[in-house]
Amino acid sequence: MSGLYLEDIKVGDSWQGPPFLMTGAEIVAFASAFDPQPMHCDPVAAGQGRFGGIIASGWHLLARVMREYVDLSPFGDTPMLGMRVDDLCWHKPVRPGDTIHVRREIIEVKRSRSKPDRGTILTLTTVSNQDGVVVMSFKNLVQMPARESVPA
Amino acid sequence: MSGLYLEDIKVGDSWQGPPFLMTGAEIVAFASAFDPQPMHCDPVAAGQGRFGGIIASGWHLLARVMREYVDLSPFGDTPMLGMRVDDLCWHKPVRPGDTIHVRREIIEVKRSRSKPDRGTILTLTTVSNQDGVVVMSFKNLVQMPARESVPA
Repeated sequence: MSGLYLEDIKVGDSWQGPPFLMTGAEIVAFASAFDPQPMHCDPVAAGQGRFGGIIASGWHLLARVMREYVDLSPFGDTPMLGMRVDDLCWHKPVRPGDTIHVRREIIEVKRSRSKPDRGTILTLTTVSNQDGVVVMSFKNLVQMPARESVPA
Repeated sequence: MSGLYLEDIKVGDSWQGPPFLMTGAEIVAFASAFDPQPMHCDPVAAGQGRFGGIIASGWHLLARVMREYVDLSPFGDTPMLGMRVDDLCWHKPVRPGDTIHVRREIIEVKRSRSKPDRGTILTLTTVSNQDGVVVMSFKNLVQMPARESVPA
């Protein structure tokens, strides 16, 4: 398996993986471990609450989107290092049975001035449900090695 | 169990919960489900990699910090709604056996102009290890109900 390098990436590049299902069992299991609020893991209480039923923890959706990224491995085996996340918003609830689509787009590519053997890419990730409604989005700054250590 | 409302919160308020342990078993279990990269779940490969051993997925640490928040429940039973996260950075790796301390501080409180029965609080969360080294930090904007719907 080969990998992509900083020189291979340009603004506007985008990709989408296969959609995945958020099951009720997974939503409750994650929430029970990491976000045990009634709206995420108690069907009865959630049914009487503001969302009218269980919704996924936002941290669960985030983790599941990371799994989709690892499975898709869009940069091959190039070692990447997540540096920061901004503008992370949960726009709409995700419910059991929702099918999730993830789209990533490169919005910035920068060579490091002090360390020209690497750089950063800024990615906008947009997560939608089966109705095309955006449920979550965030920007992710990732360090990526360059193929040539001297900028062209 | 009672709850706090927007009027009860002021800039500079801070709190810390009891520290918690990140075990190797938990690190590998989370990574196997959500972030199955060798540096998070393969001790042999991780030992030969840049970190010299397994490190926790950043998304795992984030989820675990959410659990600490739910357990601590600093606002009581007041319904809160996470709106966005910014400046999320992973500064240093977290390794099996690390003990994690979470400190949260209110850095902004705003009443909604259009809907004065609610407002937002902006929290800076700083996550450190047993040596006092900051390993992760982020800002979290949360919607919170006001006790009085008319601003004082």
